[in-house]
Amino acid sequence: MTNPAIIDCDPGHDDALAVLLAVADPRIDLLGVTTVAGNQTLDKTTVNAQKILALAGASDVPVAAGCERPLVGELTVADDIHGESGLDGPDLDGPVAGTVGVHAVELMRRLIERSPEPVTLIALGPLTNVALFLRLHPDTARNVRRVVFMGGSTERGNTTPYGEFNIVTDPEAADIVLRSGLPVTMIGLNVTHRALATTRIIDEFRGLGTRVGTVCAELMTFFADAYQRNFGFAHPPVHDPVAVACVLEPAVVRSVPAPVVVELGGAYTRGATVADLHRRTGLPVNAEVAVDLDVDAFWSMLIGAVRALGMPRTAVTSQDR
Amino acid sequence: MTNPAIIDCDPGHDDALAVLLAVADPRIDLLGVTTVAGNQTLDKTTVNAQKILALAGASDVPVAAGCERPLVGELTVADDIHGESGLDGPDLDGPVAGTVGVHAVELMRRLIERSPEPVTLIALGPLTNVALFLRLHPDTARNVRRVVFMGGSTERGNTTPYGEFNIVTDPEAADIVLRSGLPVTMIGLNVTHRALATTRIIDEFRGLGTRVGTVCAELMTFFADAYQRNFGFAHPPVHDPVAVACVLEPAVVRSVPAPVVVELGGAYTRGATVADLHRRTGLPVNAEVAVDLDVDAFWSMLIGAVRALGMPRTAVTSQDR
Amino acid sequence: MTNPAIIDCDPGHDDALAVLLAVADPRIDLLGVTTVAGNQTLDKTTVNAQKILALAGASDVPVAAGCERPLVGELTVADDIHGESGLDGPDLDGPVAGTVGVHAVELMRRLIERSPEPVTLIALGPLTNVALFLRLHPDTARNVRRVVFMGGSTERGNTTPYGEFNIVTDPEAADIVLRSGLPVTMIGLNVTHRALATTRIIDEFRGLGTRVGTVCAELMTFFADAYQRNFGFAHPPVHDPVAVACVLEPAVVRSVPAPVVVELGGAYTRGATVADLHRRTGLPVNAEVAVDLDVDAFWSMLIGAVRALGMPRTAVTSQDR
Amino acid sequence: MTNPAIIDCDPGHDDALAVLLAVADPRIDLLGVTTVAGNQTLDKTTVNAQKILALAGASDVPVAAGCERPLVGELTVADDIHGESGLDGPDLDGPVAGTVGVHAVELMRRLIERSPEPVTLIALGPLTNVALFLRLHPDTARNVRRVVFMGGSTERGNTTPYGEFNIVTDPEAADIVLRSGLPVTMIGLNVTHRALATTRIIDEFRGLGTRVGTVCAELMTFFADAYQRNFGFAHPPVHDPVAVACVLEPAVVRSVPAPVVVELGGAYTRGATVADLHRRTGLPVNAEVAVDLDVDAFWSMLIGAVRALGMPRTAVTSQDR
Repeated sequence: MTNPAIIDCDPGHDDALAVLLAVADPRIDLLGVTTVAGNQTLDKTTVNAQKILALAGASDVPVAAGCERPLVGELTVADDIHGESGLDGPDLDGPVAGTVGVHAVELMRRLIERSPEPVTLIALGPLTNVALFLRLHPDTARNVRRVVFMGGSTERGNTTPYGEFNIVTDPEAADIVLRSGLPVTMIGLNVTHRALATTRIIDEFRGLGTRVGTVCAELMTFFADAYQRNFGFAHPPVHDPVAVACVLEPAVVRSVPAPVVVELGGAYTRGATVADLHRRTGLPVNAEVAVDLDVDAFWSMLIGAVRALGMPRTAVTSQDR
Repeated sequence: MTNPAIIDCDPGHDDALAVLLAVADPRIDLLGVTTVAGNQTLDKTTVNAQKILALAGASDVPVAAGCERPLVGELTVADDIHGESGLDGPDLDGPVAGTVGVHAVELMRRLIERSPEPVTLIALGPLTNVALFLRLHPDTARNVRRVVFMGGSTERGNTTPYGEFNIVTDPEAADIVLRSGLPVTMIGLNVTHRALATTRIIDEFRGLGTRVGTVCAELMTFFADAYQRNFGFAHPPVHDPVAVACVLEPAVVRSVPAPVVVELGGAYTRGATVADLHRRTGLPVNAEVAVDLDVDAFWSMLIGAVRALGMPRTAVTSQDR
Repeated sequence: MTNPAIIDCDPGHDDALAVLLAVADPRIDLLGVTTVAGNQTLDKTTVNAQKILALAGASDVPVAAGCERPLVGELTVADDIHGESGLDGPDLDGPVAGTVGVHAVELMRRLIERSPEPVTLIALGPLTNVALFLRLHPDTARNVRRVVFMGGSTERGNTTPYGEFNIVTDPEAADIVLRSGLPVTMIGLNVTHRALATTRIIDEFRGLGTRVGTVCAELMTFFADAYQRNFGFAHPPVHDPVAVACVLEPAVVRSVPAPVVVELGGAYTRGATVADLHRRTGLPVNAEVAVDLDVDAFWSMLIGAVRALGMPRTAVTSQDR
Repeated sequence: MTNPAIIDCDPGHDDALAVLLAVADPRIDLLGVTTVAGNQTLDKTTVNAQKILALAGASDVPVAAGCERPLVGELTVADDIHGESGLDGPDLDGPVAGTVGVHAVELMRRLIERSPEPVTLIALGPLTNVALFLRLHPDTARNVRRVVFMGGSTERGNTTPYGEFNIVTDPEAADIVLRSGLPVTMIGLNVTHRALATTRIIDEFRGLGTRVGTVCAELMTFFADAYQRNFGFAHPPVHDPVAVACVLEPAVVRSVPAPVVVELGGAYTRGATVADLHRRTGLPVNAEVAVDLDVDAFWSMLIGAVRALGMPRTAVTSQDR
């Protein structure tokens, strides 16, 4: 049974691994990839998405560029974490397929409208594109099965003390998604900070002996250094693939239903995801909130996917596309 | 010389007069009319726009329905002011042309992209559609000449003490427009409250002896009663036509350049337009703010337009379309 | 019948006239004067209060210095309006009485506790002292007849587009006063901007031929220049005496009961007094809001008071103190 | 060497243990106890403070009642956690000493002014009294050595998702304290949630075989039930004694210097303590933030104190008071 999905992303090191996972694993039918400004500017995240798809042998997956800035406020890219290109580390030069020439929101509309099955939106960057899609095409949105986004936290943030990068970048977009009435799953820092690319993991990637494995190792090596420098982490958290993993295999995360709202005001807390796990606010439950991760299952899924991409893709995809 | 324009509106009694003015006056080339939820729900404002165009003999002007709700927050319609239909008062039943079948934002894009002249956006409702257009199509937006919107106030509001209806309904959209870098003119309550449809004005409409004149008189009679009931006004202010009048004949309003920001936070002031007329905030100038209205010139223009619509439209439009 | 009152102030040119009015007019029994930081720093406003009382021959009125800064946020003095001393213009050097050596809040407590009649608090600066008194001594506050404060506006502000200086300086203090449950009268810019010290008024002060008259003329001459420079006003508004005048003779202002709240949040509107004159918010009525001023009666009262201070004070006060 | 201290509190089960610890341990010279509304209304927290001092044989410690409500906003007591009396569980009836008859803020002023050594303020409830003291008596505040408060969190809260009870109750007061420029130590939920009164701990209290030990066991039994019911905690966290322990023996907590601000705005985060542990905000360092607790040392100190109170108090205190 196919599980049609669209990935909206701003690659980004961990976005790259997430896309690889989605391409490689036959349990998702990746309809398209849309890009958004976030970790880097839109032009960079778009070309990065194309490079990753080329690396994965999946240049047939349509790519569309979306919003170049958040709904409200200015864009501040995360070049301290992802480097000048947004995907610093490996050499990914080479020919890439072009984009499909329509806006990300329009590609979402077309893919979702013509999908016979409800489509899962996997959002790995600021939620600008997804929010605009929901506001522009509320009727089409009825064919969205669920939105799984990497962003927010039930605990501390990484951009401000209580704010995570994707949500702080476009709080209003996150608010729109969380109030959409669609089934929404939040994969926050509280779980992704458990998905650490340790030296052993990086070695495993490198040990695969494939081009994709090597690139993954190089990406994680750069990422490890950035996280060490910026946050003092011993090993970098690999956020975005957790969202894809959760779509592939729900049991990889444990989640609880809870009210989640985004703080849009506040002098110091704008963009905080306020998750009422103890149900003290009286707000309605509107999200599944990931609270735990099966770390071993996660890594085995991700490394398995990267391994599979070392093989001819047709072999992988013939059975499921 | 043509002055191509698109009207985005939520008719609405005063919107109706604004559309009539734009249709009748040859100094604007009305490319299209887009609709938004505001004074009433989207389905109602859309059919109302079509009815007004039909009344004006301008059913060839394309109409597209846009957003059914604001970016953030819920829609609260102004049925206390505009009635159950959004255009209570006259009987406007009869056949109307359909909409063009694309979203308002898409119609804006197409019309603006193919216009050889930069296009003026005249926004008479919540700025949801205009904001989404700016975020989705920043490149196309370079062919927008200016945005003239009715909304906000330099003084008190009408929905909250410092908030005017259009801006309070979608403050984030107004923020996007005001920060767009485009030339923006704000026609606020501080001037539109001078455009009062007195008994004498209503009598003039009725005295025209035309179908359009009678409808205008009936619209204003209903509107007068609503303003009397809700605000204790002796005569109702006719907000939206002032924005059209200002495009037709800039001298009809006096404006000053000033910084204008929208309060997005605040427990009691969300949606207030904060116009720094004395330049004490240090914010950059981003708008022309209307501060005075030539009341006589305004009414003579509006009544002249309604009078013209009593004549065969071809006579009016042959020279300018 | 005596009307015991305490003036809390931050002189300040218009505060000075307000104190003179309160001293001169036998319809108020001025129990004490307390000072607060606002127009200038506390040390300056305190010595200014003493100088004005000395000028008025009222050095027996006890003075106590209060808070040197607002509850929340930093103090920004209005030296652009009131000069380096807070009372620039006339030469007021000379011996002054000391303060009573207790905090303003403690003087309020003592005076109010031992007054057989309920006491009127006339607040002419930021409401810091009054708010602290209310929080520290809620039982004593039951012997407060009412609070009349100069501050806020039903229209635009003077410090920010919607914020008046006294309230913007200490919004939380204003919130405490407005929510206190005491009868509160707000004398805002919307009325005080009608109390303009025109050239004719200044001439009248000077023409009195007394020391106090000359000082008033000199104060208003400096003030006129500051308002011309900062706001482009042809004549300066004399805010604070309106509050005293309203205590002396309620009919000098017309007021309406209305809900008034202070915006404590907001990026651009913090400190705005949100007066719901049309009762659209559903908030409870908690204040009398001055909406009109009998300008002639006001000036005749104020000039009469200044004239009376030219006469031996004992003659004035023997009957009422 | 004496370490003079004042405890400001709102007992409260954990406040009670904190007061017992401060009374019992000779390393603090407890100058006075002031009370504030918080866990329960002011009348109840005041009588509870007196009962605890009586239980400890320390009725000679002066007690003064302070503020009956927060600076801004309404009081919401924590009767779900502390019961109807604020100290439900044990029977503490019996004669208590009266209060000293001045306001808590005035007692602080007197005690601090006449102390030859700088005084430590240990604040265990909402910071209303401490904030008012700082605003009213900034000169006296120079003789405050430091403020150690239990409140806030670097992680999640207990009253709202990111807000802890003491700070949420009076955010402006916390802001005043944190911006005071005094050395401030924050003992937040992130450490106090490690000070769990397990069944073994409760048994130890009971096993002391003294009246005080039994009361402590009964308090903790009630508290355990309340935390189980409200938060699903297996064992209740004993917040307030951690602040006292940290004054007695700094090494019992590990703290880091960091910027800490209180969110005063926000629709969902008002009262959150925003602790910038990774120094990403650029705000100045203004607090020591407790980040770890030596759990064993803490309990051994607290149980030792309770044990000591079973002995004649004169023996304990003769050497240090």
